[in-house]
Amino acid sequence: MNNKKINIAICGYGNVGRGVENALKYNSDINLSCIVTRRNATDITNLTKAPVINFIDFFNEIEKWKNEIDVMILCGGSATDLPKQGPIFAKYFNTVDSFDTHTNIPEYLKNMNEISKENGNLSVISVGWDPGLFSINRAYANAILPEGKSYTFWGKGVSQGHSDAIRRIKGVKKAIEYTIPIDDSINQVREGKNPVLNAGEKHIRECFVVLEENVNKEEIENQIVNMPNYFSDYTTTVNFISSDEFKLNHTKMPHGGFVIHNGKTSEENNECIEYNLKLDSNPEFTGSILIAYARAIYRLRKSGLTAAITVLDIPPIMLINKDRDDIIKEML
Amino acid sequence: MNNKKINIAICGYGNVGRGVENALKYNSDINLSCIVTRRNATDITNLTKAPVINFIDFFNEIEKWKNEIDVMILCGGSATDLPKQGPIFAKYFNTVDSFDTHTNIPEYLKNMNEISKENGNLSVISVGWDPGLFSINRAYANAILPEGKSYTFWGKGVSQGHSDAIRRIKGVKKAIEYTIPIDDSINQVREGKNPVLNAGEKHIRECFVVLEENVNKEEIENQIVNMPNYFSDYTTTVNFISSDEFKLNHTKMPHGGFVIHNGKTSEENNECIEYNLKLDSNPEFTGSILIAYARAIYRLRKSGLTAAITVLDIPPIMLINKDRDDIIKEML
Repeated sequence: MNNKKINIAICGYGNVGRGVENALKYNSDINLSCIVTRRNATDITNLTKAPVINFIDFFNEIEKWKNEIDVMILCGGSATDLPKQGPIFAKYFNTVDSFDTHTNIPEYLKNMNEISKENGNLSVISVGWDPGLFSINRAYANAILPEGKSYTFWGKGVSQGHSDAIRRIKGVKKAIEYTIPIDDSINQVREGKNPVLNAGEKHIRECFVVLEENVNKEEIENQIVNMPNYFSDYTTTVNFISSDEFKLNHTKMPHGGFVIHNGKTSEENNECIEYNLKLDSNPEFTGSILIAYARAIYRLRKSGLTAAITVLDIPPIMLINKDRDDIIKEML
Repeated sequence: MNNKKINIAICGYGNVGRGVENALKYNSDINLSCIVTRRNATDITNLTKAPVINFIDFFNEIEKWKNEIDVMILCGGSATDLPKQGPIFAKYFNTVDSFDTHTNIPEYLKNMNEISKENGNLSVISVGWDPGLFSINRAYANAILPEGKSYTFWGKGVSQGHSDAIRRIKGVKKAIEYTIPIDDSINQVREGKNPVLNAGEKHIRECFVVLEENVNKEEIENQIVNMPNYFSDYTTTVNFISSDEFKLNHTKMPHGGFVIHNGKTSEENNECIEYNLKLDSNPEFTGSILIAYARAIYRLRKSGLTAAITVLDIPPIMLINKDRDDIIKEML
């Protein structure tokens, strides 16, 4: 290892951006050059001494930043931010992002690949835990037991999308939704029964809602449990709580889940591979993953690669801030 | 994908060699050219129609085989077979082996690397589940939570080494040992308590023994439970059973285990990553892993690489018999 630090930047300072900044303290080989935001830079109080810069100011000095930043970590959302920001930043920087709209991944990858190659950069898309670590585990399991079947369960954890959907209902002041995997289904999968499970047989949804004053509880509950796509296919429970209780018990962002793959190696022998995560803080964990992949991208770019790739293309050893010999001695 | 099959050969036809042959039925892109054995070829009844060839005959036609075989899978033991066979075969072939003497891995890797490079071949060593899949999981977990702690538990499963040790005792006819992880310790680890656990606090050892006639049970039990290195540091139970019961209940080779890694991302947030395997057949599962890595070695060698490498150096996507686009669509 040489002693030059890897200079990263964070684009987008929400929960995930803050999670990346938080993870710096465990990664002494990484230096944070700056945080880029669309907000007023002065409105942001960040965790470290790294400068916060507004988009416009950043692009005004793009040549300077291009020389200074080794890897840009894009922490925007997948719905509207990344489809725009990914291609813009891949012109100037090696990038890491957590694009997680599964159905649009092939198109986004193709787009990012073309732009990265044209501009001599390297990008890794869809980094995190799903897509990300879960994808890696689905891949290893399918490689080893190709005739087997992979199941993915999520939770117990907060779904931002579902929480947002509740908050959009008139009369709702605050809301949080927990996705909870159904133990009985997980156990059927673990036992190798390869059950056919529809959405509602895999997860239940538990909601905690703070109401505005003088609204009809029953009506709001009905709106939630019958909401198509989000809740109507699930067993959903709605708990109305006070603002104080909400603050006390529902501000953390736990998450996790399970990838379970069962496959036979012969008529009588079943093999079960399980990977699971239990996370107190989804954004802090995600930030920790993004930093490890920034390291890998830096190293792979130095070896000459220009492209957009995925976590499935990257050898695990590339992620670790240790000498190869020590990794092999300690972890193999 | 092109349609040429990858030609592998198996060297050593014990449980693992048979496991590799068994896995062929799930890997349509792989063809078994031959099985090489130190026994008389005619003594072996194998699962497929692949020819079985004695070592001597094989080396008499080494130039022919060198052209025909893409990857040689070495299925010998780590104590005496692989340290000799690895370097011999790496002169002629790309190889995959399951060298598992952890302390000797660095030396073996160095040796295999020199020979493979000199001869324009590519080898991957220490493939299987530990070392192997467990190593990969220790590596990912350490990359993401570098300040965390990894624990590995094995079992419930058969330890060949411990079973052999019992069989060497005079008066013992048959014996099998199961290594069983202690649930309470696993749960402490899962809860993020980072306990300090000595060997006997992680696993217990359960033995099933068939005795010769007219021997002293108590004396043999004492010899087992007090055997240094193998049993004296553990809670060990010895069950004397009949030959019939042994045949009925103790001829399978189940195994498995757990890699659990806990790490904090901040003062208040703990993140737990767990990987576990529950295997009905350790050799069939191991054979399935070895085949997947033979595929990866074939591909990496074609891309120009010559060296000896480890599972940590290989991207997961290389292991799978599918088109890249399909892998990304289905697994990412």
